[in-house]
Amino acid sequence: MKIALLGPKGTFTHQAAHEYFDEIEPIFFSTIKEVFNSDIEVKVVPIENSIGGGVHETIDLLNENDKVKITGEQRLKIKHSLLSNEESIDEIDTIKSHPQALSQCNDFLSDKDWNIIETHSTAEAAANLKEGEAAIASSIAGEVYNVNILEEGIQDVESNITRFFILNNEESKGEKTSLIINPDGDRPGLLSNMLSCFSGHGINLSHIQSRPKKTELGEYYFYIEAESDQNNEEFKRSIKCLKSYSEVRILGSYTSKGGGLK
Amino acid sequence: MKIALLGPKGTFTHQAAHEYFDEIEPIFFSTIKEVFNSDIEVKVVPIENSIGGGVHETIDLLNENDKVKITGEQRLKIKHSLLSNEESIDEIDTIKSHPQALSQCNDFLSDKDWNIIETHSTAEAAANLKEGEAAIASSIAGEVYNVNILEEGIQDVESNITRFFILNNEESKGEKTSLIINPDGDRPGLLSNMLSCFSGHGINLSHIQSRPKKTELGEYYFYIEAESDQNNEEFKRSIKCLKSYSEVRILGSYTSKGGGLK
Repeated sequence: MKIALLGPKGTFTHQAAHEYFDEIEPIFFSTIKEVFNSDIEVKVVPIENSIGGGVHETIDLLNENDKVKITGEQRLKIKHSLLSNEESIDEIDTIKSHPQALSQCNDFLSDKDWNIIETHSTAEAAANLKEGEAAIASSIAGEVYNVNILEEGIQDVESNITRFFILNNEESKGEKTSLIINPDGDRPGLLSNMLSCFSGHGINLSHIQSRPKKTELGEYYFYIEAESDQNNEEFKRSIKCLKSYSEVRILGSYTSKGGGLK
Repeated sequence: MKIALLGPKGTFTHQAAHEYFDEIEPIFFSTIKEVFNSDIEVKVVPIENSIGGGVHETIDLLNENDKVKITGEQRLKIKHSLLSNEESIDEIDTIKSHPQALSQCNDFLSDKDWNIIETHSTAEAAANLKEGEAAIASSIAGEVYNVNILEEGIQDVESNITRFFILNNEESKGEKTSLIINPDGDRPGLLSNMLSCFSGHGINLSHIQSRPKKTELGEYYFYIEAESDQNNEEFKRSIKCLKSYSEVRILGSYTSKGGGLK
């Protein structure tokens, strides 16, 4: 099955797609926006990291693309490795990686006096290693690009997990439902009133993220994940309540696969 | 007065500090974390952009540094210019800037087939221009580094505003108060209940941002801005109510200066 995802070969998104599907034919794009715009029906995109938080680019694209549906979730434990063509860490003078990966290895990097080069993905760093350079990327990227794995598990925090969404055009069922609420204007207590639509019907929220509408400073839309299928009667009542306050769009229901944590 | 801020010379933070204070002696640091860690009493840091949203690095550092106080806010209209040592746009083959600035000029860049180099700040890009290169930065950076301003106002959206906080060690008064709530654990409706502490006492919120606690996926703290001074009686009641649910830390009260929007 063809899957659109962020490349090149060996990114964490690539690894997540491998874990979710039995067999894949990955089609790589260089930005998340290009993944959203592609004609390929099934797409895999990162949505949240336990250290960095929500992936804004994905949330904004979910808000802007009104046809896309979330049909699955894959959790992946992120382990960073130090990759290089050099044989030893003593020969390294430059480190390259994606800014998020670099910030997740702060402790490891703090006593190294290395030059820093930022790249668009961790895999891109691993794919383009010159003399004296090392990359922070997955061990899989090390194998894909046939470079030495000098150290493994160099991230600051043991519990580093990224969630990925599987996007498709189908309706789906599951334990969780994502939605976007786009309130028209603001008035005192509006968010509190809207959230009481969920608590009042016994629906718990596992995630809420405010994002700017990009029109005026101080105007926001909200991306929300609720612990319920979209066809649950109480959930439907929550949505009815919510629609008395705001425009609401259901993005899909899904069940999480992978790494233990909620 | 000595002010710690993100450098080099000519960043938007530098410009914001100039607008807030009559006279400044800027001390430049290369990351927001270094600004927070510096011994200089007064600091200026970006907190939110109307397109990109909350500045996570600043919010996380406010959460981690329990002595710092917010005492002022400066709003600044962000206008991006195309800067180069070349005389004409036809001679450009490479564009360099901070990733947020690049993403704010998507429309302008979409029909250019230029190489892209990401830098730590827009001013850093303007300060290091080679042959065939252009930077996206403020016109002020163009003057500071004595390079040609090829085009002005190349950002996608006219209304692009960044808010900056003035940090100090003093207690302060103002129209708004920032606070952090750090709930211990999660239960259905907790956020809804906490927010009703504000609505129930007639206090409006202008901003709320969830950020991961960085311990486990799905655990968050909340950064909140309320439209009230911290010594207002009703606000104090809100906080009393809130403390029945969660740890609360008041970051300071302040009044906004600059650019019209709320």
